[in-house]
Amino acid sequence: MTLAPSSADTRAACLARDAADPLAPLRDRFDLPDGVIYLDGNSLGARPRAALDRARDVVAREWGQDLIRSWNSAGWFDLPKRLGDRLAPLVGARPGEIVVTDTTSLNLFKALAAALAIQQDRDPQRKVIVTERSNFPTDIYMADGLARWLDRGYELLLVDSPEELDAAIDARCAVLMLTHVNYRTGRQHDMAALTRLAHARGALVLWDLAHSAGAVPVDLHAADADFAVGCTYKYLNGGPGAPAFIWVPERHQAAFRHPLTGWWSHAKPFAMSHGFAAAEGIGRALCGTQPVVSLALVECGLEVFEQTDMAALRAKSLALTDLFIALVESRCARHPLGLVTPRAHDARGSQVSFTHPHGYAVMQALIERGVIGDYREPEIMRFGFTPLYTRFVDVWDAVEILRDILDREAYDAAAARGAVT
Amino acid sequence: MTLAPSSADTRAACLARDAADPLAPLRDRFDLPDGVIYLDGNSLGARPRAALDRARDVVAREWGQDLIRSWNSAGWFDLPKRLGDRLAPLVGARPGEIVVTDTTSLNLFKALAAALAIQQDRDPQRKVIVTERSNFPTDIYMADGLARWLDRGYELLLVDSPEELDAAIDARCAVLMLTHVNYRTGRQHDMAALTRLAHARGALVLWDLAHSAGAVPVDLHAADADFAVGCTYKYLNGGPGAPAFIWVPERHQAAFRHPLTGWWSHAKPFAMSHGFAAAEGIGRALCGTQPVVSLALVECGLEVFEQTDMAALRAKSLALTDLFIALVESRCARHPLGLVTPRAHDARGSQVSFTHPHGYAVMQALIERGVIGDYREPEIMRFGFTPLYTRFVDVWDAVEILRDILDREAYDAAAARGAVT
Repeated sequence: MTLAPSSADTRAACLARDAADPLAPLRDRFDLPDGVIYLDGNSLGARPRAALDRARDVVAREWGQDLIRSWNSAGWFDLPKRLGDRLAPLVGARPGEIVVTDTTSLNLFKALAAALAIQQDRDPQRKVIVTERSNFPTDIYMADGLARWLDRGYELLLVDSPEELDAAIDARCAVLMLTHVNYRTGRQHDMAALTRLAHARGALVLWDLAHSAGAVPVDLHAADADFAVGCTYKYLNGGPGAPAFIWVPERHQAAFRHPLTGWWSHAKPFAMSHGFAAAEGIGRALCGTQPVVSLALVECGLEVFEQTDMAALRAKSLALTDLFIALVESRCARHPLGLVTPRAHDARGSQVSFTHPHGYAVMQALIERGVIGDYREPEIMRFGFTPLYTRFVDVWDAVEILRDILDREAYDAAAARGAVT
Repeated sequence: MTLAPSSADTRAACLARDAADPLAPLRDRFDLPDGVIYLDGNSLGARPRAALDRARDVVAREWGQDLIRSWNSAGWFDLPKRLGDRLAPLVGARPGEIVVTDTTSLNLFKALAAALAIQQDRDPQRKVIVTERSNFPTDIYMADGLARWLDRGYELLLVDSPEELDAAIDARCAVLMLTHVNYRTGRQHDMAALTRLAHARGALVLWDLAHSAGAVPVDLHAADADFAVGCTYKYLNGGPGAPAFIWVPERHQAAFRHPLTGWWSHAKPFAMSHGFAAAEGIGRALCGTQPVVSLALVECGLEVFEQTDMAALRAKSLALTDLFIALVESRCARHPLGLVTPRAHDARGSQVSFTHPHGYAVMQALIERGVIGDYREPEIMRFGFTPLYTRFVDVWDAVEILRDILDREAYDAAAARGAVT
């Protein structure tokens, strides 16, 4: 195995590692611009080459020529389930347990509503949704929106560190709602251990896999998780804003109820009955008509994963992030960079975040030099590593450009902050 | 004006009307398959030719080459508002009052939640949502889902005919929620009159424009409507399942609150604050990240409308539906066809529905002969007319094929019913 960290970290050594990397040929599956080192696949994954032909086919033939018939003949109706089944192996789910639909925000709303309803039946005294203050904001906003509107005494408890979770998951906790890999720090939770803890205390667990699916190995069944949602446009390379996914294991499907009961969640949508009857199975997690063109492109991203497996991807991901951390810390040692991402492998996702007092300006300068990462308040520069297409030499070159910018102070320290996306 | 019904209804007369039709050149803006008479634009609009190049550009350049930068450089973040402003003139809305986002089902949920919240502040005794049993089912399901989850005594009152609305809109009515043009019958409500009636009784009015936007003239401000939602993939030709729209007039925006508070509805989404603060203006009707490829294609449909206006489109639409009704009733007179769509112009949308005891089988036979309409329970054959691309000769030919099928009983009367889409 040539993926172990090299003792001689030189550009030549990185090129040698790429030459020996069994995943290296997968880079050709993607269209990447010249002159760019793309370290933002944790925000928007690169374009699979197949997506252009697929877009042409969906637009020109399926829509343009076959028109309304494509709902059946091109399988448009089945896309949410077909894509869900194809995604399932990446997160340890089974066929018939995932649909690709709507947005992560909305899917979280559905799953949280269902979890609260289950607890309402089991133990109505449980009124607290526990999560982290550092969770991705939309998760907190959606939970807050649901809790306020239900207006039955539900509360959000935001903990400030993972260490506080143990105390927070008490007899009043209805649902533990966590993002598996933190979007800002790249810290990964121990899904199995936290799920076990929550279950032991009578709580249900809802996992947001936005920065996990396709990034780190996930086994929802092994962890005995209750619900999960996630994103297809980051590490799964499904396209900008592509529909999200929701996982409901078979054991919870019969009890899965939520208020967003659109016609696609009806048992017989074309009976056009005015009475609602939820579909059996995962179909009840759907709501309204889905954006077919965007949805269809998700398949092009998923296809690439079928050429490899998450164990191989994880090995390379850790090698890439190890190398990046080592190079930044050695070659940029005299600059005030602070590693935010855990060094421990089992606590790390597939990104590395460093703080810098002028993080926003430094990231702007990096982007101008073709190293695309992004910036998140406060002071955090994020670098995402996608083993499907990121090379070891990319890591070397990115760090050299970062070093050059810092050494020469070639950034505008007075730049007004804003979103660097 | 050559659009008036012709006294001599012959194929030659239809060709002459097409030759004199000032809208005829707009058909070239669409890619329509050979050998097909497409009368289902009320379900899925045809593909604007521009959509193929636009798809290629969004996928290859904006996504593939510019990657994450396109959120700003290609204006992806602004798409919901930009498209909303472009759609606004078609429904009598003003800039800054519409976003194109999510699905009609979800937008209806948001608008209904907001309307109920406004009434809760004004007159908390108002607990009834009035609609029609014949409304599109998803509207009823979403309202039911919201009412059940709020669990504060809200009820749905389903009336069986428009005549019952007067009595139903009483002092307990919080919201009158109607679809402007009925999906099955093509009957059009008098938006201004019903809004006036509801306002006089203290109710708010939410209009679903799924079968109205781009199909019939709509003036939301002239009608003094409160909220509206609608669809972009029918008469607006935005592409399969393309995101829907929601209209909130400026006078209601400050009070517009709903539970689906995703990060796109936040005043400063990239501040990544854990506390929710709703955006000013129409932005608060957004929720999560939108499917950019599908969303971008909506613009290609809207562009075509800028070549004409709704008055011209309405005149041709009525001429087409008048002709269709007249030809079916004269040339298929000996068959048991029943006109469902109103004859009165001001009560008709841009579709015509006929019942037939074997409606399902007859529609199957029509589709096999290249005349694409659709079928809705019970017994209803729907024919949509899109003056942007439907020709008078198409009407003639469609009726001749229908007549031939009926005369020869060339349909499988024993065919199992199902969705004909």
